[in-house]
Amino acid sequence: MKTRVITGILWGAGFLLVVYLGGIWYTALVFFLATLAYYELIRMNHIRLMDWHGLTGLVFLWLLLFPNLVWEGNMLRGDAVFLFVLLLLFITVASKNRVEYQHIAYLLFSSFYLGFGFHFMNETRIVNGLAITLAIVFSTWATDTGAYFVGKARGKTKLWPAISPNKTIEGSLGGVFLAVVTMILFSFITDSLTISQALLIGLVISVSGQIGDLMESAIKRTLNVKDSGSILPGHGGVLDRLDSLIVVFPVLHLLQLL
Amino acid sequence: MKTRVITGILWGAGFLLVVYLGGIWYTALVFFLATLAYYELIRMNHIRLMDWHGLTGLVFLWLLLFPNLVWEGNMLRGDAVFLFVLLLLFITVASKNRVEYQHIAYLLFSSFYLGFGFHFMNETRIVNGLAITLAIVFSTWATDTGAYFVGKARGKTKLWPAISPNKTIEGSLGGVFLAVVTMILFSFITDSLTISQALLIGLVISVSGQIGDLMESAIKRTLNVKDSGSILPGHGGVLDRLDSLIVVFPVLHLLQLL
Repeated sequence: MKTRVITGILWGAGFLLVVYLGGIWYTALVFFLATLAYYELIRMNHIRLMDWHGLTGLVFLWLLLFPNLVWEGNMLRGDAVFLFVLLLLFITVASKNRVEYQHIAYLLFSSFYLGFGFHFMNETRIVNGLAITLAIVFSTWATDTGAYFVGKARGKTKLWPAISPNKTIEGSLGGVFLAVVTMILFSFITDSLTISQALLIGLVISVSGQIGDLMESAIKRTLNVKDSGSILPGHGGVLDRLDSLIVVFPVLHLLQLL
Repeated sequence: MKTRVITGILWGAGFLLVVYLGGIWYTALVFFLATLAYYELIRMNHIRLMDWHGLTGLVFLWLLLFPNLVWEGNMLRGDAVFLFVLLLLFITVASKNRVEYQHIAYLLFSSFYLGFGFHFMNETRIVNGLAITLAIVFSTWATDTGAYFVGKARGKTKLWPAISPNKTIEGSLGGVFLAVVTMILFSFITDSLTISQALLIGLVISVSGQIGDLMESAIKRTLNVKDSGSILPGHGGVLDRLDSLIVVFPVLHLLQLL
């Protein structure tokens, strides 16, 4: 527990510092974390990074990560997807089927899952600025905190035991509550959101964050893995730590709430 | 053999008739064939079409199939991809992991593979017209024919035995030869291509067509299936019959040869 708290604080503080710095620092961090998460995700399915298909997936992930302003008038992302699909299919042939169709499908999906997630994590900081990015991060963390303490104190009814046996409905609601409170506090401080906007955004953050958490649990359960990695003592891997945020940011953009 | 020849001629004639008709007829045929191919491809991996994830993949495939002119100013394909990825991840959670990460990855990849292939099959007819579409189809079929007869007569050196044990290098070169001859003939008849253009296009068609064939063989070998389906007696499934064309058309567009 002590390791867990210390690592958590150090990780959180380091992350926030780079969010604050923004610019190239934050973009570089996003690329770095996405690469680690990619490594964790493919290793869970016994795909090696240092292999033709592992590296091809990584390059595609990086293409997705580039900020939108780099892409404009540069190259169609559609063509990139298409080239990626063809290259991967070609690798199955060139490798004489050592690389199977299911492997390349896993890579494509993983690149998209992480690509969208981390891309919008970066895009929000660039386009929407520091304040709202921090508010989203805090609100997501508030979800975890609220769910943990309320679940511990009052948790009775299992939320989704097939995938995550320890989560309870009470905890989940506690998470939603604390996330919404955080977002409303933010709206008071900055005056940039109305209360109803803050309420809606807080709700979306908390619900999509919890679903993101369940999604990652589902993946790990399928692959019989407990933690995605071990880079953060007591917290598992990078993916375990960011599973909520990489769903929260894209969903907020998709729903055009930002 | 007799069944095979008769089915082959009927299928070929029917296909060419609809290519000739063009417009809504050809687009409808493309949607129909793509749907059959999708059904074959997911069934090979024991995914049911009439299931949430099977249907979600199909809807996404159809989105990719729509001609470019329908999309313009309508909806970003990027957003569609993204929504599809999220929906599929959500289905893993909602199904309590009966639908696994590897299944949804398989669906995403399959939708892209068929989506791009059939989309460009349609797009070529719309944008580039009847003559060149027919030339490409004939040149692809010429590849098969040349490979079959030259391989039968002079085939000695195995081409890629790990994936397709009966193919020979001699046959493959015979396929390239007949495809290029077909394209050059076309350039004489229509006067729309220079000889060197015809030579290059014929070469690209034949090589990418043969690779497309190997790709589909690789998929089937991975999944321990002999034919993708049995809709065409003696010829296997729709995917077996169109595996070359759904790679040829996109590659020609990607290389900006059309």
